[in-house]
Amino acid sequence: MNKIYIVGAGGFGRELLWWIKDINKIKPTWEIAGFLDDNLYALDGYECDYEVVGTIKDWEPKEDEEFALALGSPALKREIVGLLKPKGARFATVIHPTAMLSEFAHYGEGFIMFPYSKLSANSTVGDFVTLLSSPIGHDTLIWDYSVISGNCNVVRNVVIGKDVFLAAGVCIAQNIHIGDGAYLGIGAVVLKDVNPGDTVFGNPARAMPKVK
Amino acid sequence: MNKIYIVGAGGFGRELLWWIKDINKIKPTWEIAGFLDDNLYALDGYECDYEVVGTIKDWEPKEDEEFALALGSPALKREIVGLLKPKGARFATVIHPTAMLSEFAHYGEGFIMFPYSKLSANSTVGDFVTLLSSPIGHDTLIWDYSVISGNCNVVRNVVIGKDVFLAAGVCIAQNIHIGDGAYLGIGAVVLKDVNPGDTVFGNPARAMPKVK
Amino acid sequence: MNKIYIVGAGGFGRELLWWIKDINKIKPTWEIAGFLDDNLYALDGYECDYEVVGTIKDWEPKEDEEFALALGSPALKREIVGLLKPKGARFATVIHPTAMLSEFAHYGEGFIMFPYSKLSANSTVGDFVTLLSSPIGHDTLIWDYSVISGNCNVVRNVVIGKDVFLAAGVCIAQNIHIGDGAYLGIGAVVLKDVNPGDTVFGNPARAMPKVK
Repeated sequence: MNKIYIVGAGGFGRELLWWIKDINKIKPTWEIAGFLDDNLYALDGYECDYEVVGTIKDWEPKEDEEFALALGSPALKREIVGLLKPKGARFATVIHPTAMLSEFAHYGEGFIMFPYSKLSANSTVGDFVTLLSSPIGHDTLIWDYSVISGNCNVVRNVVIGKDVFLAAGVCIAQNIHIGDGAYLGIGAVVLKDVNPGDTVFGNPARAMPKVK
Repeated sequence: MNKIYIVGAGGFGRELLWWIKDINKIKPTWEIAGFLDDNLYALDGYECDYEVVGTIKDWEPKEDEEFALALGSPALKREIVGLLKPKGARFATVIHPTAMLSEFAHYGEGFIMFPYSKLSANSTVGDFVTLLSSPIGHDTLIWDYSVISGNCNVVRNVVIGKDVFLAAGVCIAQNIHIGDGAYLGIGAVVLKDVNPGDTVFGNPARAMPKVK
Repeated sequence: MNKIYIVGAGGFGRELLWWIKDINKIKPTWEIAGFLDDNLYALDGYECDYEVVGTIKDWEPKEDEEFALALGSPALKREIVGLLKPKGARFATVIHPTAMLSEFAHYGEGFIMFPYSKLSANSTVGDFVTLLSSPIGHDTLIWDYSVISGNCNVVRNVVIGKDVFLAAGVCIAQNIHIGDGAYLGIGAVVLKDVNPGDTVFGNPARAMPKVK
């Protein structure tokens, strides 16, 4: 059985630990080794039964180790993958037992699915995609490193680019295209395409002026 | 065991196939016969393990056949029921094993409940109602052919008329009445009654000007 | 086995009865004794298999009795607890079998968790908190008597004061503080702190003018 390290000991990491334990309860899958975090004191003051066992930047991945990215930032995921992957790190697929994954869906490396999330028929996600407890409709494409927070609704026939962040409660209507690196703010209701790098908020969602 | 035909081979149909398989896994209920669609090529290019076996308009229902409506449009459901029912078609009740159906709720013919949907105490839905993954609160009434998309919230003591469409993420406050044929746009937050035939969007939801 | 009384025979009570039966199916926990309501006719005209067996105001709690608060109003919960607790009433913890309760979360007396609700890692709720089918993120604090309706999204690192009401579909962004007694209207998207006693609606949520 491989060891699993949770990369990031913030709240996301402490929650991901819970889902990994749920997976292990159904079918023993990994030996949980603890957290990696560049802040070795990240768990100080938090009730938790695992520890930060090392920093991310100095970790030397071994043959029997897998890594689960507990990070809500596409940029940070990209940076850490860029650091660990050249050293041979393999990133775990972590799919909660209650998640709904269509037999006709496809996904890349390091895919994370939280409880009750859904990836529907004929949808595809790239590498290092993080899907919290939200449904992704059919015929949808999500590119690498994007993060979908909880209670979102990605209806169907949607394309979400790379490095996109959907905050909680975002709705995206059918046939919409979200450009790379876009940030969709909490509760945004997206009725038209979002340009790469744009930040949108509101119902209907509107782009915020860019900081120069 | 009856045969079941999924009427509509779009994304909705491919997703409904998944839920029908889930039901069969818990308790073998139907022999899945495939899809009916007036576009015989509707599944071309889609990974799927069943085929379009005939058109809707020419189908002659037999004694051992049931039909599940995989259509998101109330008008289209009404048209197809009008076509198949006079030929003797019986429409299947498709309730996902994880759906929550109160023992004191009532429903008509051809009711569809997606995973984790809820129909609460003392609520009633009419015929050919489609309930995706959303909760319907107590003491609520939904009339024939209406469609409730995913992640909606129909609080309680609500009346939804015939042929109403709720897009994803719609919230309807308590004691609201939605008139027949209304269209509630994605993410609409409905705080007051909606007139028959109106299209509403926004938070709070407002009626769009009618196209003459 | 203790008796359980559902306090409040409205729709909330009829729904809570359902969840209590679900708990009993998994593990027989209580003998369901019926409803308490100051309106002895509250169930008239409703299909239900239990009855109102007495009024709240006149009830004399006995040793083998527990009480489950089926009330959506923080003020009413506070009033009824003030009435029954001095007479020795003990309030039941009612956690649906599908609810997700972190092993590192904490809660007070009379906590109610509906199906698929979540209380995440290192979060704490006080006494008499009611959590309908919504996720509460990590590192969050909810004080006494507050009510979280369904499909809300309390992201993480949030503080919700006493006697707060979240209507359905409310989103609260990270690091927000909600003051005591606030009312967050249906579908409100809360991006900044809410003052005690304020009523907010909209996306983004804005405080309503106070009625003098």
